[in-house]
Amino acid sequence: MMTPRRILSLGLAVGLAASTALAQAPNAGGRPRSPNDTLKSVEVSPDHKVTFRIYAPKAAEVSVGGDFAGGGKLSKDEQGVWSLTVGPLRPDYYSYTFNVDGVRTVDPKNPMIKQGISSLDSMLLVPGDESEFEATKDVPHGEIRQAWYRSTTLNEPRRLHVYTPPGYGEGTEKLPVFYLLHGAGDDDSGWSTIGRAGFILDNLIAAGKARPMLVVMPNGSLPRPTNFPRITPGTTPSPEARAAMEAIQNRFTDELLKDIATFVEGHYRVLPGVENRALAGLSMGGGQTLRVLTTHPDRFAYVGIWSAGLFGGNPDEWEKRNAGFLERAKSVNDTVKLLSIRVGDGDFALAGTKSLSEVLNRHNVKYELTINDGGHTWINWRKYLNELAPRLFR
Amino acid sequence: MMTPRRILSLGLAVGLAASTALAQAPNAGGRPRSPNDTLKSVEVSPDHKVTFRIYAPKAAEVSVGGDFAGGGKLSKDEQGVWSLTVGPLRPDYYSYTFNVDGVRTVDPKNPMIKQGISSLDSMLLVPGDESEFEATKDVPHGEIRQAWYRSTTLNEPRRLHVYTPPGYGEGTEKLPVFYLLHGAGDDDSGWSTIGRAGFILDNLIAAGKARPMLVVMPNGSLPRPTNFPRITPGTTPSPEARAAMEAIQNRFTDELLKDIATFVEGHYRVLPGVENRALAGLSMGGGQTLRVLTTHPDRFAYVGIWSAGLFGGNPDEWEKRNAGFLERAKSVNDTVKLLSIRVGDGDFALAGTKSLSEVLNRHNVKYELTINDGGHTWINWRKYLNELAPRLFR
Repeated sequence: MMTPRRILSLGLAVGLAASTALAQAPNAGGRPRSPNDTLKSVEVSPDHKVTFRIYAPKAAEVSVGGDFAGGGKLSKDEQGVWSLTVGPLRPDYYSYTFNVDGVRTVDPKNPMIKQGISSLDSMLLVPGDESEFEATKDVPHGEIRQAWYRSTTLNEPRRLHVYTPPGYGEGTEKLPVFYLLHGAGDDDSGWSTIGRAGFILDNLIAAGKARPMLVVMPNGSLPRPTNFPRITPGTTPSPEARAAMEAIQNRFTDELLKDIATFVEGHYRVLPGVENRALAGLSMGGGQTLRVLTTHPDRFAYVGIWSAGLFGGNPDEWEKRNAGFLERAKSVNDTVKLLSIRVGDGDFALAGTKSLSEVLNRHNVKYELTINDGGHTWINWRKYLNELAPRLFR
Repeated sequence: MMTPRRILSLGLAVGLAASTALAQAPNAGGRPRSPNDTLKSVEVSPDHKVTFRIYAPKAAEVSVGGDFAGGGKLSKDEQGVWSLTVGPLRPDYYSYTFNVDGVRTVDPKNPMIKQGISSLDSMLLVPGDESEFEATKDVPHGEIRQAWYRSTTLNEPRRLHVYTPPGYGEGTEKLPVFYLLHGAGDDDSGWSTIGRAGFILDNLIAAGKARPMLVVMPNGSLPRPTNFPRITPGTTPSPEARAAMEAIQNRFTDELLKDIATFVEGHYRVLPGVENRALAGLSMGGGQTLRVLTTHPDRFAYVGIWSAGLFGGNPDEWEKRNAGFLERAKSVNDTVKLLSIRVGDGDFALAGTKSLSEVLNRHNVKYELTINDGGHTWINWRKYLNELAPRLFR
């Protein structure tokens, strides 16, 4: 397995044009040596403890936070290096950022970055048995492709990511396709960085646990109208706000079912038929998935709704507005072989998920609800992908 | 054309699971509003001026620097927002970082990041006529694929990037292949982020200016032995240091010619023959390219050596050690249809490039030397790619 430490330890390979390489090295140009030149961050020890370090001799306060317990203030040594050790942490990928005197910053010493459209986070891996499913292992690897399609909905070229399984490029067979959606503030790269989607699929396919499939990861963050209504969290939105939200969801539904599916079916070897199509999404992407399901229940035989649910916790109004879908429960149950709803017990989407479950119960729509530990984090979403993919297209 | 501003303006698309989306919005959780919530950085104005901003109320000094003139100290307003306007800048991509009280940091508000193995930089685009060649335009786009091969040289799975031109996935024709190398401290992703390689090729191919080709972008940063000798810039290295440098270059040559080429020829539709293979690299990658050329002059018909040259500025010793190659000048001239050597007049590799040119002259090895404006920057390397690609495989 290749760990981040392995990647960090590569160092600078000095070539024949060594003056070139050296001029980019940390201590070029006669600058005095600093503790920062050899500083290591993040450092994961064999006992799964994690040490964060940052050189900030003039800072008054430095803290670190992420999707793990034990973050908080770092302490400073006499050289100006701040550090904090947390853990031991359960083997997994984690994301974190520093806060240096009020400035949120990624770890300047760690090249593993997760980019979104509205945030940057540093990433780290605690290697171990529990993270083997998502690790970069010595198994056949598929490709992660960045492709561009023309969005007629948005009238612009738009990017998506596609996972193609090992051997796809040399093969001729058609494959089932799994559309996998990210959350708010993110873009189509998220599932291939902190989401580890390609590696999770590689490992499942190598172990014979999942069928080879394409995984299409679109950019679900659409432009929002400038007059988009302001919605206060925890309150029930006005009818106008709700209408605006649904309008933007419908726009994404168009984008997915028309532009993206048309591009995918025209450019990749895809098996036809609803039984060869799956759709899942997390958080905002879970809401998009639910909207696609209720407006087009005949399009996907496998559906995953993760860390999402009904807005405002009021199921009655949602029931009313989705009567058309709910009345078709019998045919929905025939088409949708698996509707998997998942959320963590510490996730703020728990109440909304329970509301969704309650309405589906009233109308006998078949689904599975699984509530596990944890919160609104990629720790859960990677796990959900790893557990859903083996059940698709069976 | 899609500019970074367009990407930044997408905002958060709020879905049906709106509580979810809102909980990730800047002002969730009742936290007091801050100027940072709506801060925009980087901002490029229609007159090509660029404004950098960062919220750092407790900082004593903030500066910005990158591959443009006019960087330096920012000034702070009463709300704690630091800003500096530079330019107008010539339309192009630029990279930059902030320095906040001695801590080097990427722009927390700018999602466009260039990652290397030893550095992170923020990126910006000044749109305009001069940057059209590298812009994301409404033309057919190829794919950028992340693929993994097994390195027998390093005994591990290793990643590379491959550009496949528009239509490759649906086609059956074989294509020529261009191996394109990055510089020190970087990895196989560099040419696809700040290097804009895919977009440059897309635009050239759409305009009929370049032949469709595969572009293979390997990771040239190999692990360096822990006892690697220390080399002081500007001095002539010891024989031991030189031997160590050549050993690591030979290792990359093996990696490229055995592992990478074998993988590429086994997994992609590649035309056989030296006349269908090109190799170019920048800085450390230019040094690697030169080493491949001198040790295997029969493998590539098109060669580009960019911002690289002879180490230490002493051509005589290099001439002696490469006598075998230089004596074969006639057959090299027959095989290598184009040896293009390029460097900026402000590049520290200028002297080494001139030394290389001098030795090649002595032995009548055919080459082109072009010295243009500018330094050791991606501004030049993107330009070199844009000017070399149309001349390949003709």
